Amino acid sequence: MSMKALTWDNGVLTALDQTLLPTEERFVHLDSVASVWEAIKSLRVRGAPLIGVTAAFGVLVALDEAAPQTPEAARDAVREATDYLATSRPTAVNLFYALDRMRAAVDTLPETASAGEMRARLEEEALAIQRRENENCRAIGEHGAALLGDGDGVLTHCNAGGLATGEYGTALAVMFSAHEQGRRFQVFADETRPLLQGARLTTWELMQAGIDVTLICDNTAAQVMREGKVQLVVTGADRIAANGDAANKIGTYSVAQLAHVHGIPFYVAAPWSTFDLSLESGALIPIELRGAEEVTCGFGCRTAPEGVKVYSPAFDVTPAELIAGIVTETGIVRPPYRENIARMAAAAGLEGQAERHV
Amino acid sequence: MSMKALTWDNGVLTALDQTLLPTEERFVHLDSVASVWEAIKSLRVRGAPLIGVTAAFGVLVALDEAAPQTPEAARDAVREATDYLATSRPTAVNLFYALDRMRAAVDTLPETASAGEMRARLEEEALAIQRRENENCRAIGEHGAALLGDGDGVLTHCNAGGLATGEYGTALAVMFSAHEQGRRFQVFADETRPLLQGARLTTWELMQAGIDVTLICDNTAAQVMREGKVQLVVTGADRIAANGDAANKIGTYSVAQLAHVHGIPFYVAAPWSTFDLSLESGALIPIELRGAEEVTCGFGCRTAPEGVKVYSPAFDVTPAELIAGIVTETGIVRPPYRENIARMAAAAGLEGQAERHV
Repeated sequence: MSMKALTWDNGVLTALDQTLLPTEERFVHLDSVASVWEAIKSLRVRGAPLIGVTAAFGVLVALDEAAPQTPEAARDAVREATDYLATSRPTAVNLFYALDRMRAAVDTLPETASAGEMRARLEEEALAIQRRENENCRAIGEHGAALLGDGDGVLTHCNAGGLATGEYGTALAVMFSAHEQGRRFQVFADETRPLLQGARLTTWELMQAGIDVTLICDNTAAQVMREGKVQLVVTGADRIAANGDAANKIGTYSVAQLAHVHGIPFYVAAPWSTFDLSLESGALIPIELRGAEEVTCGFGCRTAPEGVKVYSPAFDVTPAELIAGIVTETGIVRPPYRENIARMAAAAGLEGQAERHV
Repeated sequence: MSMKALTWDNGVLTALDQTLLPTEERFVHLDSVASVWEAIKSLRVRGAPLIGVTAAFGVLVALDEAAPQTPEAARDAVREATDYLATSRPTAVNLFYALDRMRAAVDTLPETASAGEMRARLEEEALAIQRRENENCRAIGEHGAALLGDGDGVLTHCNAGGLATGEYGTALAVMFSAHEQGRRFQVFADETRPLLQGARLTTWELMQAGIDVTLICDNTAAQVMREGKVQLVVTGADRIAANGDAANKIGTYSVAQLAHVHGIPFYVAAPWSTFDLSLESGALIPIELRGAEEVTCGFGCRTAPEGVKVYSPAFDVTPAELIAGIVTETGIVRPPYRENIARMAAAAGLEGQAERHV
């Protein structure tokens, strides 16, 4: 990505306002914890990994805003900020993972640590989370690129690119990596209603990278599959349970079922930070409901009657049995998922996560 | 419908401009054959049955516009008008069916018929087509209402209501009729991208009738099915082949596959005028491709990058094997379709149709 979705520079947190893309490239300074919360809630920053990174820096913003005079006040400010930021969006586990790491960074400091030492430790931790997400995306791309054959068509839903992660993406990392290796392929991008992240963001990122992309309405995915134009589906994820069930943007479950019907392998690409081993299955993943206006009045124009009832879950859960593999930074997890996720997660150092989650 | 989608009154053809609904209820006078063509092409009037009725009256508008002085000139004007109006949209067979009937009405007049007699005969024929479509819709509603059980959820895609037919609808006729019988049920309306006929028109019609309707994005249909909220799917059709394959708005095939996966019966509601027995299968139905702007810039706001490639077929074809039954004005056609369609079509007086079609 030539355009950074999020930067932390000398204590200043700046985000590309993704709600304005692709027509406007405007950056917003997130100079209060409230503005960080709002940016996550309203999807100015979005995508599971980027939400986590933004929240981590948001704790630092909160600390600078509070300007605590004592170590106790600093600890209180961090606790308050993590509790508050955790309420911004419920589904993406990276948010809670990052906030847990930030809180743990403070908790493991000696009692005698000063407010300044605390801030330095938190900055180090946030930068480490950001660096780690970026490295993970590169590794996901390398592991996944082999799935894409020359001449293939690949379909993706929503946006799991650099804009979702800060740099390279998860699902799109697979495509960026294959493209860098000289592979030729065609991407079909679902527009992804209601907020059109596929139309606005995925096409934009792929076009910038010089990758052949065609935009389709969500309801056209089945037809494109039927016409034999798709050999592979890859999407991101917002939370993956211990059994491999994966929550992702609404419509992903539909795509997975349709891929299954058409004999097309469906892959999820996500770092281990997106796994939530405390959840036995996807049925336990909390699903955010969004407001009616995003559907009825999304783009400056009312497109449904006043007062119409709307059902708009932001995510759905794809059952593990529809997933051919999960591309992580340490390799592709294959079924049987419960065993293989447990084994590979332990190897990836994720074993402590289950205890920490809410 | 309290609001007539199309009226013919003392030689004046007036259409409700459906592109402006639900925010604006504006009527347009179609006072030239070019304006009739444009109204069909740009979906100011839409829905297979209504397109047919509009085109039929369009032939009269053309005749009045030409003001022929001789019977020969009148015949030429009718021929020219039917050829021209047939180019407005390619998929809905009702268009060709209605134009065939109008041309046949003239062709079967005696050589000696005057231009005035010709006009009278054409007006009679157009009114007969309109009356017949309305009666058919009522009958479809009555045959289909029994499919809807008390407490059921029913999902529909696009708009096959009074706005699509002139009065009562096809898929929605089933719901209107069940509602009139006091049945209680819940409708889920797919918004139906790119032109949002579900969001703009179906919800509007059902709300006016006092029927419980919830709007969902197209990509949410699978999730609603999975949650057990849907017991039945009913959609309209734009053309049905001799083997039961049914073309309808893009996304219908997706809904049919998802209904199949979830064990939910999928029904098509359409009059016999929507059948095209000259086509052996749905593979022969011409599918209209629509422009990119409807997807990238649909509602006064650009939502995808300039120059992005778009694939936007207006229709797809649902294979007969996914269809539990086709609700017609003479009853529900069940598999095996080839035999039962041939038999019931003959009984409905459709046997001559195959010869007349282009």
